[in-house]
Amino acid sequence: MSNVIVIKIGGGKGIALEPIADQFASLVRAGTRAVLVHGGSHETDQLAEALGHPPRRLVSPSGHESRRTDRRTLEIFEMAYCGKVNKGLVEMLRARGVDAVGLSGLDGGIWIGSRKDAIRAIEGGRVVIIRDDLSGRVERVDTSLLELLLNCGRTPVLTPPAVTAEGIAINVDADRAAAMTAAALGATELLLLSNVPGVLADGNDPTSLIARADAGNLERVREAAKGRMKNKVLAAEEALNAGVARVVIGSARGDDAITRARAGAGTVFEGAHANA
Amino acid sequence: MSNVIVIKIGGGKGIALEPIADQFASLVRAGTRAVLVHGGSHETDQLAEALGHPPRRLVSPSGHESRRTDRRTLEIFEMAYCGKVNKGLVEMLRARGVDAVGLSGLDGGIWIGSRKDAIRAIEGGRVVIIRDDLSGRVERVDTSLLELLLNCGRTPVLTPPAVTAEGIAINVDADRAAAMTAAALGATELLLLSNVPGVLADGNDPTSLIARADAGNLERVREAAKGRMKNKVLAAEEALNAGVARVVIGSARGDDAITRARAGAGTVFEGAHANA
Repeated sequence: MSNVIVIKIGGGKGIALEPIADQFASLVRAGTRAVLVHGGSHETDQLAEALGHPPRRLVSPSGHESRRTDRRTLEIFEMAYCGKVNKGLVEMLRARGVDAVGLSGLDGGIWIGSRKDAIRAIEGGRVVIIRDDLSGRVERVDTSLLELLLNCGRTPVLTPPAVTAEGIAINVDADRAAAMTAAALGATELLLLSNVPGVLADGNDPTSLIARADAGNLERVREAAKGRMKNKVLAAEEALNAGVARVVIGSARGDDAITRARAGAGTVFEGAHANA
Repeated sequence: MSNVIVIKIGGGKGIALEPIADQFASLVRAGTRAVLVHGGSHETDQLAEALGHPPRRLVSPSGHESRRTDRRTLEIFEMAYCGKVNKGLVEMLRARGVDAVGLSGLDGGIWIGSRKDAIRAIEGGRVVIIRDDLSGRVERVDTSLLELLLNCGRTPVLTPPAVTAEGIAINVDADRAAAMTAAALGATELLLLSNVPGVLADGNDPTSLIARADAGNLERVREAAKGRMKNKVLAAEEALNAGVARVVIGSARGDDAITRARAGAGTVFEGAHANA
């Protein structure tokens, strides 16, 4: 599908959605075909606390963090991501003249993935195996519904969960899902915007932004990325390797965040990367 | 659109969704084109209580009841209807082989309506005017997205809110929205299933079911309908007057509720009614 861009807005604390809706609506009204992907982690954490089912993070032996997703957490997750954030964004976009259609990866089987059937996690210094977690990863994007919508002038607003081939909803990383979506749609550009300005050489120094990631410094970029940024770098690499020409990891903050990211503010990944 | 049926499942207490998903999936797998509309009032009430924003009912001078919908209530409403219930149903249907797509009336502008800009309500014995309520009613159904989905073998699962022409989300009655959807789609049949068996001549006597509503007894049916049943009867009349051949108000309970309602269990409205 030619001439489509994918913009992913993080669900972290401190991201104002109204300015995002303003900018995204301007793009669409100007004729850009775009898919908006969003997260909702901060809303989910808040809702989970308020409902007395506080969030729990699983830490793998290698240091990878994920959300413990039992059935109740999945419901809370869907209320926050698919209810509050998704419908909130759709309303903002419709009020700005965009024919937005809010969907999860479950709807129409857009994001098909597999559930992790055994997660190794560190608990109290020991490695435990968790078998009933409802998280996983997207393995395939069925673009038919997205294309159907884009081809009649509608704008998909897409969020986790994804779904397994057996029809089980799974919590997935929205950055990597956005990257796979950009790749599957043949998008020219992917923006991964959140509450950090890009990949920082020193996580404690916001001025240490690495402005460009290419074959020459990729190992350094990977090493600099900590925590949630690891997934964003992985997502950027996956998109690039799958043919997306340009990925920018940048800030979602401010009245011109999308414009600035498209102009190169943040960490810009361009050109095919060899797999290390 | 020929050969489509609309089934609306209430969101009241005590309706098990798994058996509904079983029956609805059987219908779809057998080749029936169907739209599932659902409510979520009980889930919304529970969530609102848990979040410390308890539900408030507005009672009009004529005795009509509605949910007080301020902005926070709308968010809670969307979390329950569009998050928990909608995605729960979509997951159940996908696990049963149905290519379900969950949508609200906001998405793609399916349910266009107007907001009530002044609601008269009785408070402490006095009539007050409420101007900031986010509720209203559906005035027009844009069937294009629904038809797009049905024509490629997908099954819409549709729920409030609706949206105004200006892009404001509004809480609407799901029974009447389902009736307008059935009419707009040219559906042959509309089922309005909930936790009551149909219109009862005596609300306290479940054996006093009025089995048939026609021109001869319509006034009696209208008078017998109290509370939420008033809207169902109004919805049934609206659908019938708009050309839907058959409407059944029946029970959503049990393993064969849909089959039984289609066979006539409940209050069956058939044939055109003159407006009284």
